[in-house]
Amino acid sequence: MSELTESVAKTMKEFEKLPGIGKKSAERIVYHLLKISNEEAFALSDSIRSMKENVRYCKRCFNLAEGDLCEICRDSRRDQTQLCVVEQPRDLIALEKTGHYRGLYHVLLGRVSPIDGVDSGQLTIDALVKRVKSGEVKELIMATNPTVEGDGTALTITNRLEGFPVKITRLARGITTGSSLEFANNEMLADAIDGRQSFE
Amino acid sequence: MSELTESVAKTMKEFEKLPGIGKKSAERIVYHLLKISNEEAFALSDSIRSMKENVRYCKRCFNLAEGDLCEICRDSRRDQTQLCVVEQPRDLIALEKTGHYRGLYHVLLGRVSPIDGVDSGQLTIDALVKRVKSGEVKELIMATNPTVEGDGTALTITNRLEGFPVKITRLARGITTGSSLEFANNEMLADAIDGRQSFE
Repeated sequence: MSELTESVAKTMKEFEKLPGIGKKSAERIVYHLLKISNEEAFALSDSIRSMKENVRYCKRCFNLAEGDLCEICRDSRRDQTQLCVVEQPRDLIALEKTGHYRGLYHVLLGRVSPIDGVDSGQLTIDALVKRVKSGEVKELIMATNPTVEGDGTALTITNRLEGFPVKITRLARGITTGSSLEFANNEMLADAIDGRQSFE
Repeated sequence: MSELTESVAKTMKEFEKLPGIGKKSAERIVYHLLKISNEEAFALSDSIRSMKENVRYCKRCFNLAEGDLCEICRDSRRDQTQLCVVEQPRDLIALEKTGHYRGLYHVLLGRVSPIDGVDSGQLTIDALVKRVKSGEVKELIMATNPTVEGDGTALTITNRLEGFPVKITRLARGITTGSSLEFANNEMLADAIDGRQSFE
């Protein structure tokens, strides 16, 4: 479209590449950026650049980090004997928000998924096995997503760790607090029955 | 959240300021940016910066421009006697896409809106009057939005131009091609009857 200036068209195209941003949203965002002050717009562009320049993966657990180790690995008050295994940094963040876990993490950076062409070699499983071998870890909590691929990934890891003196657990499954049995599906109810807990 | 690195949290916050981007979308976008290459992410941040540095309003019609005049004003093949008055550059783009108009434009950069505290002095109406006074313009096509505020803005301009030898028209209103009368509302049908055209 010759009616857009070149740099406006270019910026719209760049925004359209982002997930969840279509042509209309990109237009709206760009018109907004044209309207606000240079300082406000530069705050956005500079934050993107500086994030890409500074953020890397934690050398130990593969969480997002600005130095060699992430904040959680640097925190010596956390329980060094528990390791929670998650697929992505965002899963770690969701678990941290609960405030219910004080151990360390291991981020796989994906899940085994034949359909997407991801095999276990592309994940950080080797590094996880090394951490377990080093001896300090007593419990491994599988917190991969409750999907076929997440469960498969957890199983792959469990197989790799056979024979190691480490207790392997997984997140509880069942009915969700605040929901009603009437609307629970079969799988949820089956999980809830199989995993029933003692009533205290 | 201490689990996010500082620059990740900052980038999410900047994205949340954009229209239509909530907390969840901002998270999704930032995780996407972390995943792609530096070059790809820098393409976005650089395009924002360069757009803000290079784009200004056309000195004559207030369309978006990279130099003093926009592409349309620079195009001498366009009909210099017709002026289409729109609220925003995006309206101009919508009209240009039709390929049905070969005259020039005048962008008001807003509409008279007492509710939003916008009066006619904040728009580019003075510059428009000057262009009409200069004499070359023979027809002014009002293409403000078909809303109370858009119509009011067009009326304000018409009043300001009383006595000038310029023909003032506005975009036709009526039923829309491809729609059905059954679902047209009263106002659309009233417009269509009042503005009925000779059948050729």
